[in-house]
Amino acid sequence: MINLTDFGGDVSEVRPKTLIAMGRDVADRLLTGEVRDRLVRIADVDPDLVASDFADPAVAGALAAAEVLYTGWGCPPVTAEVLAGAPKLRAVVHAAGSVKNHVTEACWERGILVSSAAAANAEPVAEYTLAAILFANKRVLDIARLYREQRAGLDLESRFPRLGNYRRTVGVVGASRIGRRVIELLRPFELDVLVADPYLTEDLGVPHVELDELFERCDVVSLHAPALPETRHLVDAARLARMRDGATLINTARGALVDEDALVAELASGRLYAVIDVTEPEVPPADSPLYDLPNLLLTPHIAGSLGGELDRIALLALDELARYAQGRPFAHGVTAEALAISA
Amino acid sequence: MINLTDFGGDVSEVRPKTLIAMGRDVADRLLTGEVRDRLVRIADVDPDLVASDFADPAVAGALAAAEVLYTGWGCPPVTAEVLAGAPKLRAVVHAAGSVKNHVTEACWERGILVSSAAAANAEPVAEYTLAAILFANKRVLDIARLYREQRAGLDLESRFPRLGNYRRTVGVVGASRIGRRVIELLRPFELDVLVADPYLTEDLGVPHVELDELFERCDVVSLHAPALPETRHLVDAARLARMRDGATLINTARGALVDEDALVAELASGRLYAVIDVTEPEVPPADSPLYDLPNLLLTPHIAGSLGGELDRIALLALDELARYAQGRPFAHGVTAEALAISA
Ligand SMILES: NC(=O)c1ccc[n+]([C@@H]2O[C@H](COP(=O)([O-])OP(=O)(O)OC[C@H]3O[C@@H](n4cnc5c(N)ncnc54)[C@H](O)[C@@H]3O)[C@@H](O)[C@H]2O)c1
Ligand SMILES: NC(=O)c1ccc[n+]([C@@H]2O[C@H](COP(=O)([O-])OP(=O)(O)OC[C@H]3O[C@@H](n4cnc5c(N)ncnc54)[C@H](O)[C@@H]3O)[C@@H](O)[C@H]2O)c1
Repeated sequence: MINLTDFGGDVSEVRPKTLIAMGRDVADRLLTGEVRDRLVRIADVDPDLVASDFADPAVAGALAAAEVLYTGWGCPPVTAEVLAGAPKLRAVVHAAGSVKNHVTEACWERGILVSSAAAANAEPVAEYTLAAILFANKRVLDIARLYREQRAGLDLESRFPRLGNYRRTVGVVGASRIGRRVIELLRPFELDVLVADPYLTEDLGVPHVELDELFERCDVVSLHAPALPETRHLVDAARLARMRDGATLINTARGALVDEDALVAELASGRLYAVIDVTEPEVPPADSPLYDLPNLLLTPHIAGSLGGELDRIALLALDELARYAQGRPFAHGVTAEALAISA
Repeated sequence: MINLTDFGGDVSEVRPKTLIAMGRDVADRLLTGEVRDRLVRIADVDPDLVASDFADPAVAGALAAAEVLYTGWGCPPVTAEVLAGAPKLRAVVHAAGSVKNHVTEACWERGILVSSAAAANAEPVAEYTLAAILFANKRVLDIARLYREQRAGLDLESRFPRLGNYRRTVGVVGASRIGRRVIELLRPFELDVLVADPYLTEDLGVPHVELDELFERCDVVSLHAPALPETRHLVDAARLARMRDGATLINTARGALVDEDALVAELASGRLYAVIDVTEPEVPPADSPLYDLPNLLLTPHIAGSLGGELDRIALLALDELARYAQGRPFAHGVTAEALAISA
């Protein structure tokens, strides 16, 4: 759980001049109630002024005065040109996950401080993953589908050997924020967990193995690595072939990590199962087989924060803003170096 | 997690004479590998002799000598007549959940010691429930179904207001073994949990409320009370009417707890969602609407132990047998009084 109260409160001597920069619809959804109240308490901000285009003359004055940008999904890139109009800007506090879409090279060069709420966005993805794992080992959705089709009792043991969440093995690919949280959430269960990550140096309390070994040993493989050139089609036909018969692949990371044609082939044969929240392209074309495979649970990129979960993100970002106002370091600061291997 | 090692090991001075009593198929599945090895180490038992009918002359000798019955699903009732042929019997160790089907009044009168592995059977039911809750608050299955139908991007916020597992409320009906484990498993999440149970006197760390209040306040209501005369149709039309629009009812307890016609009416209107693992009758007739309702996840009584999960149960029962052999009290003993309000 993200500790939302581990900061000195919202009180500071100076409320930093802040400009909101995100999609208009995102702002409408995010900046209400408790979030809006805290925002104006912490910062010197016009809560109704939203920069969704930095070239908009209506935001030029606020941008020129801003010390902090409170950003969200839909924030346009903070380019060198934008920075030229923001001489006082010192920090970008992002009320969403990745900062890659708006924090540019120019920001790093100017030494702008950057914070991200990716840690808060990790929580719902890890929860979705946990539920998907528990249901996959038990084949809950597959059994439900058969029951519906047959409208009669089923012989489960012969149809689904090795059912259940006892002494099964789950592989986590990527000791990312989400991957680590998944490992933590799996602790109460009698499941063996393996992790694969070339950058992992710490001991997370679970065996750290090579990727191929992980694919061979696991009943469920869950992807939590970022989309990077090196992770493109990390799951290809050869890796899928290493998976055990009846195993499940979960992808809540990015579509680019999986060779979708190879996955479709394995699913069509009935050898594997999958839970896929992200695809490439993000909404598959209407004739995609992904919509029809019975052994695939396909969702439209919903594992991350939605609905009320957006409040958690906005509140984490407000904690960061309050830290900044008090002259304390960010708890969730982002550096250019870390970003090179991050989502 | 059930601690399977909290006992003095399998060594005792005397291995108690033990007879296996359960369905033949259950024995074939259960008494293999590690379980079979430990059973013969702990007890003086013929692992190939299975009493699935106490009147069978082939088991009469073993019954007459038995000090312990190691029982499982399909064990016939241990009646006064059976007891008459088992003069040395002192204990029934059950490698399954409820003992109500085979431990008769006559057993209690004779002072037979009884142990149940219901605590180990609680684990998979709690896991199924946890996954069902996390998916329900996020409407994962409903969104997946729509995505499949529409084969296009969806406007989720308008279609499913209040999505997510942040600051939602989950109600646990029955502080039973399973109900308590569900409460424990929900701790890592930012969900408010309420419990209702007329017999609960302890503080479980979550608000203890009246049943009607629980139904009114929760986004998910999960049933974990036993089937008793008093719990029959505990969830009737009036209680369902108290549930919030868009709330989810989970029943992994017993079909008898729910007025199914009333539930079907609420589901058909689209006002509520449900996850139902148990029905009345247990396999609904082929023309039952339960098979067709899109907002219902219907499974054929699979939440309890299946496949590899049966090992956990058999091993817990072996721990109990080892305790008996060492003259120690059962860790999971059952009394006639407790049974009156138990599953
Ligand atoms: N489905 C959704 O709604 C949703 C929401 C948030 C994030 N995501 C995705 O989830 C994934 C994880 O996000 P995060 O914020 O936890 O990531 P993160 O930025 O915390 O991950 C960084 C870490 O990933 C690991 N990593 C880097 N390259 C790797 C490789 N080649 N193999 C294995 N591990 C590697 C390293 O440990 C690195 O430190 C990303 O792909 C992200 O885009 C999806
Ligand atoms: N779906 C499955 O595969 C599966 C598997 C195991 C158990 N079950 C069912 O799950 C339920 C819980 O099983 P368990 O072993 O945890 O039960 P249990 O025997 O531990 O439950 C006993 C407790 O239930 C509570 N209770 C009794 N009457 C109640 C009432 N009227 N309202 C609320 N609470 C009441 C009391 O606290 C009592 O101590 C039972 O219905 C059982 O049959 C289902």
